[in-house]
Amino acid sequence: MHNKLKKLKKLVGEAFELQRIAAILDWDQQVEMPVAAAAGRARQAALLSGLAHEKFTGAELGELLNELVPEMKNLDPESDDYCLIRLTARDYDRHIKVPAGHVAEFAHATSLAHSEWEKAYAEADFLLFRDSLSRIFKLCRDYAGFFAPYDHIYDPLLAEFEPGLKTAVITEIFAALRPPQVELLHEIAAHPEPDQSCLKQVFAADKQWQLARAAAAAIGYDFNRGRLDSAVHPFTTAFNLNDVRITTAVKTDNLNALSSTLHEAGHAIYEQNIAQSLENTPLATGTSLAIHESQSRLWENLVGRSRPFLKFFYPRLQNAFPELRRVPLDEFYRAWNTVKPGFIRVNADEATYNLHIMLRFELEVAMLEGVLAVADLPEAWNAKMKEYLGIVPPDDARGCLQDVHWSAGLVGYFPTYALGNLISAQLWEGCREACGSLDAELEQGNFAGLRHWLNRNIHCHGSKFELLEVLRRAVGTGIRPEVYIRYLREKYTALYGR
Amino acid sequence: MHNKLKKLKKLVGEAFELQRIAAILDWDQQVEMPVAAAAGRARQAALLSGLAHEKFTGAELGELLNELVPEMKNLDPESDDYCLIRLTARDYDRHIKVPAGHVAEFAHATSLAHSEWEKAYAEADFLLFRDSLSRIFKLCRDYAGFFAPYDHIYDPLLAEFEPGLKTAVITEIFAALRPPQVELLHEIAAHPEPDQSCLKQVFAADKQWQLARAAAAAIGYDFNRGRLDSAVHPFTTAFNLNDVRITTAVKTDNLNALSSTLHEAGHAIYEQNIAQSLENTPLATGTSLAIHESQSRLWENLVGRSRPFLKFFYPRLQNAFPELRRVPLDEFYRAWNTVKPGFIRVNADEATYNLHIMLRFELEVAMLEGVLAVADLPEAWNAKMKEYLGIVPPDDARGCLQDVHWSAGLVGYFPTYALGNLISAQLWEGCREACGSLDAELEQGNFAGLRHWLNRNIHCHGSKFELLEVLRRAVGTGIRPEVYIRYLREKYTALYGR
Repeated sequence: MHNKLKKLKKLVGEAFELQRIAAILDWDQQVEMPVAAAAGRARQAALLSGLAHEKFTGAELGELLNELVPEMKNLDPESDDYCLIRLTARDYDRHIKVPAGHVAEFAHATSLAHSEWEKAYAEADFLLFRDSLSRIFKLCRDYAGFFAPYDHIYDPLLAEFEPGLKTAVITEIFAALRPPQVELLHEIAAHPEPDQSCLKQVFAADKQWQLARAAAAAIGYDFNRGRLDSAVHPFTTAFNLNDVRITTAVKTDNLNALSSTLHEAGHAIYEQNIAQSLENTPLATGTSLAIHESQSRLWENLVGRSRPFLKFFYPRLQNAFPELRRVPLDEFYRAWNTVKPGFIRVNADEATYNLHIMLRFELEVAMLEGVLAVADLPEAWNAKMKEYLGIVPPDDARGCLQDVHWSAGLVGYFPTYALGNLISAQLWEGCREACGSLDAELEQGNFAGLRHWLNRNIHCHGSKFELLEVLRRAVGTGIRPEVYIRYLREKYTALYGR
Repeated sequence: MHNKLKKLKKLVGEAFELQRIAAILDWDQQVEMPVAAAAGRARQAALLSGLAHEKFTGAELGELLNELVPEMKNLDPESDDYCLIRLTARDYDRHIKVPAGHVAEFAHATSLAHSEWEKAYAEADFLLFRDSLSRIFKLCRDYAGFFAPYDHIYDPLLAEFEPGLKTAVITEIFAALRPPQVELLHEIAAHPEPDQSCLKQVFAADKQWQLARAAAAAIGYDFNRGRLDSAVHPFTTAFNLNDVRITTAVKTDNLNALSSTLHEAGHAIYEQNIAQSLENTPLATGTSLAIHESQSRLWENLVGRSRPFLKFFYPRLQNAFPELRRVPLDEFYRAWNTVKPGFIRVNADEATYNLHIMLRFELEVAMLEGVLAVADLPEAWNAKMKEYLGIVPPDDARGCLQDVHWSAGLVGYFPTYALGNLISAQLWEGCREACGSLDAELEQGNFAGLRHWLNRNIHCHGSKFELLEVLRRAVGTGIRPEVYIRYLREKYTALYGR
């Protein structure tokens, strides 16, 4: 068994490294690369993903797994080796069930769809994207078919992003989440909007960069094992456990780069604190999108938008932007936490974000089931916007065309955003139960207690365990939407009154 | 044949792309990477070079070449296909003659030698490096043995860097070059040193970066297909023909970044102007180190240190650094072209540089032949310094320990620097014969005539032809040291008088 394990580690280790090399190329493309180099870079990226795919799906790996899986019973289920075999077998199975012809067709369709979507988005005209989107949902149904029988047609798609989780679980969670979120929003809407004039000024870019760096460093992002750069669409990427890079986009008419940096630093702190013993194996990465998002949202919102954090950090903002010196902390805190239904998901506040997600989840499930025709998407979108958020987009660019995901074939991705929010509140509560209130520490800029709790309970495991197992180990339960609702209600009742 | 050629192109194309991906990782490491990431990056670099090596030396390529080489007679020797087969066969032959055991041993020895060299250099103590260097020269002799019989033991080592060139040719060239270079240096030394006070000031870094960018853009480096960044040791690297990046190191106590940028831009203009039809094949790169160096030195020295160039560019320097406004052009020109024997090769001026190279060439040949014991290197080094440059280094850090090359196993590399200088003058003369004096154009910042001549005669060919063939096509002769001597003599006689 020892030799077979060694072979497995070499094989999947190399495949994993090839993916990480591809990540270097992608980071360079988004941060540094001259635009004219795109065609050459695409060729290199395709070569790398092809080589990784070969290793991950080759007969050699299949034979190794055939020999190793029966021997798992002799291993401790918590051991790295057991988890590596389980994860490799899971992903191998997912890969080989999909014929190469489908993979090629899907890549071709999404490549076309992306440029169609860009045109449709620019002209705010859904008709220009309709046929591409129909083709993508058709291919997604085909994809699910390779995994039949399934409990729900959405399950195989969800498994790409949130392995181990079932559609039925999400449906149940969202059914419990939706009414109280809508209700809370109605309550908040009955109160006057906070004064946001303090956020309507010019914030110099160089000061924002300094603050973004300071905030990331303060919460524990290790700049000796990473770096912060500028990118149009902020992202986090890991090349190895000692090189986890974050990006942000600074705009001088708002302070969003601060939140965006805390968000990305949250992702990166996860990756930077995975056990070094997992390095060079596919376990050396975050376990799933929802768990990853729980980390980014925890630092962005539960920490970054909290009053204790601002008590620590707001004086630095005032120091950088003298116009804020006349604005008391509580006025800024209220402005910084304004709740207001809007059309655009990525701009949504804590209290409305999940509604955007539930809408998308319901629509993509309905289109996949065939209950909703793709042609009817704009109408269905607008109806749900009215129902959940009380507003109707003036056009499809601010409606069903706003996200890139579907054009890229990412069906099954959206719910992980909301699950991440829910889990962030559960971890926040779990840590406070274990460590006591963190407020005094946060007010002093001391984030070590929170971070170490996350290190021990989430980060160190890498992708050894799937979402529900990670959560069970950390807080002893499954996903509980009521915890997030309680968090929102307490925070916004204090802010807005009853 | 068509299908076999297609297979060949796919195979070596992928191997070549893997090398270029490795270049992206290397650039990132030198320009962007957090230091802590070095171990993980080394693993990824090793994986890529291993995969490229497999493709370049595999049985599949050997069989393809066995079938294709006999069919070359049916191809036009100037065609891309013919040249691709020839180059691939040449490099395949070089690779497979060396046993894998030797490659591993050499990699191990140079890795150790590099850290020993760093210590020895820091303490200026050759003894700390002696045994490592002996081992390296022993392994270099072993390496040459795999290619026996040879005309000279140095030939197989030289072939790594300057394929097709023989040691005997270099020996003959240097024999012709050495006496007039030493003589010219004696003549110059008899004159008083120019006033260099104008170069002894603080030159603000941001202004230097602007000037470096402006100079590179002016001579034709295409910033839309490349970028300029900061690196400790300036270098040029190509990821594809539309992404050729340069780096420089700005120091505020001198203006060397200007020269260094012109030098790297010269390398990059070569790579950026290779025929796009060669892209994605091993022909899509410069043909050899000496030809590459001829391009960098031409732009750095024959253009960048010329009076016509300064007539164009010096006003920009004066604009950036007001202290220079009181310094007339000719005073700056003289200071900028000061000839003065020094200990350090990388700081050497045009009139002394080749002497540093000939010294190294003679010593590495002697150590390889076994005529000179490695233990006696410092003494031999200092004796030659005295003979050629009239000075003796005060310690080995400023003597035989100054270069990293030998510690990295780069034996056979040095002569390409001097050959590059010689060739740069021949191309300069060739272009002036074809296009007339370029002085008026250069004075106006118009470099298109020179660049286009180089595009047509050197760049577009990529690595289709070897050095001597490239030169024959461009200027109709072999390497002629007298052209460089004539260039030096004319320039420095005008500057220093007879």
